[in-house]
Amino acid sequence: MTSSIQARKPSSSSIAASCLQTRLLTIAEIRQIVEQIGLDALMDEMIARLTRAFEQFDPTETLVPVRTGFSYQQPHVGLVEWMPLFQKPDQIVVKAVGYHPQNPERYRLPTVLSTLSAYDPSSGHLSAVIDGTFLTALRTGAASAIASRLLARPDSRVLGLIGAGAQAITQLHALARCFDLSRVLIFDSDRTVSRSFAARAACLGLTVDIQIADTAEIVATADILCTATSVDVG
Amino acid sequence: MTSSIQARKPSSSSIAASCLQTRLLTIAEIRQIVEQIGLDALMDEMIARLTRAFEQFDPTETLVPVRTGFSYQQPHVGLVEWMPLFQKPDQIVVKAVGYHPQNPERYRLPTVLSTLSAYDPSSGHLSAVIDGTFLTALRTGAASAIASRLLARPDSRVLGLIGAGAQAITQLHALARCFDLSRVLIFDSDRTVSRSFAARAACLGLTVDIQIADTAEIVATADILCTATSVDVG
Repeated sequence: MTSSIQARKPSSSSIAASCLQTRLLTIAEIRQIVEQIGLDALMDEMIARLTRAFEQFDPTETLVPVRTGFSYQQPHVGLVEWMPLFQKPDQIVVKAVGYHPQNPERYRLPTVLSTLSAYDPSSGHLSAVIDGTFLTALRTGAASAIASRLLARPDSRVLGLIGAGAQAITQLHALARCFDLSRVLIFDSDRTVSRSFAARAACLGLTVDIQIADTAEIVATADILCTATSVDVG
Repeated sequence: MTSSIQARKPSSSSIAASCLQTRLLTIAEIRQIVEQIGLDALMDEMIARLTRAFEQFDPTETLVPVRTGFSYQQPHVGLVEWMPLFQKPDQIVVKAVGYHPQNPERYRLPTVLSTLSAYDPSSGHLSAVIDGTFLTALRTGAASAIASRLLARPDSRVLGLIGAGAQAITQLHALARCFDLSRVLIFDSDRTVSRSFAARAACLGLTVDIQIADTAEIVATADILCTATSVDVG
């Protein structure tokens, strides 16, 4: 989908339109991409590309300043941060990430919402706005899988998940792409979240045994322990 | 115009859409607003609101962290910066501003391009994306007018403009709303920009005498001296 956010060019009128366009990737387009590519192929590609990005990271070519943001108690407890990236010479992307623990209960939205804005470094034009919520969850899952591939035993079968919200789904997905998992033990401080986990994970099509457990049992049993939770904002 | 950038909500499917919307104000919508309100009324309102904002500024209620950004020589000399704002409790806005001196020649675009992104502090949802190029020029002009109203003689008649690009138009406009200008002396290092100034300013409907001059003459003659230029990026 291409929209018509257009930039001005100088002309005899003070407000004239050029033909510059801004590409919008909404949740509808993201869903279409997922349906066409497939969740597994998308996660495999994400893991492969993120592995290359970590291996080849050159801080003189890829500038990633420390994130900044606003952290607050009103209107609700929350945090909005910006994560700028300059991949020289042709990509500037700013990822905005919101962290609002009351989102699920208040708005039936994920705790973490995200938006990607891409700017053309040659002109400063906004070249794309992309719904980053699913992509952020995908990337975060992929990063966990990469770390576990380096740190965990390759024959790990039991995954322990502390925190069973939206992020836990892509953690499970990514880890299941790298390990032959047979069991998943989950814990969440909100029991309704624990109980809905298996249904929410069903879209992954995994043949793993999902069980609710307490943290002590998870820590004692799991081959890989994955946390997707946070106590305080920040 | 309302678009369909939608955020995910938790559900049995890992990618489900809620009814959250993102408002887009493209150059077409901005132009429509200008046509309906009128340039003069818009500038008067901008000057009035900006004056109030300066007078009432409370750094504990309006958080304006120092801008950060990327400054570079490739692909062309340029700068992209982010200016976050938190107007407690209900507005988070990030203004992205690009400064690319080669824009007019290379792309027939203004040197300064800008995008406003608004996020809902209660959820982190992207609530609006607004073409900020004209609005930035408008606001910069208004700020000059406010400063001149405080610093210049009220009977000032001659305006000197050093730099006659896109920004100079709104500088002239704002100052003409606050002073009874009779003459405008302009200088630009690019003669084609100087020569096109009067035609570009025609949309303001002013009855001022516009003349190209050298900087020494401008400095000697002007009652108000306004610079809208920059030597280096940054």
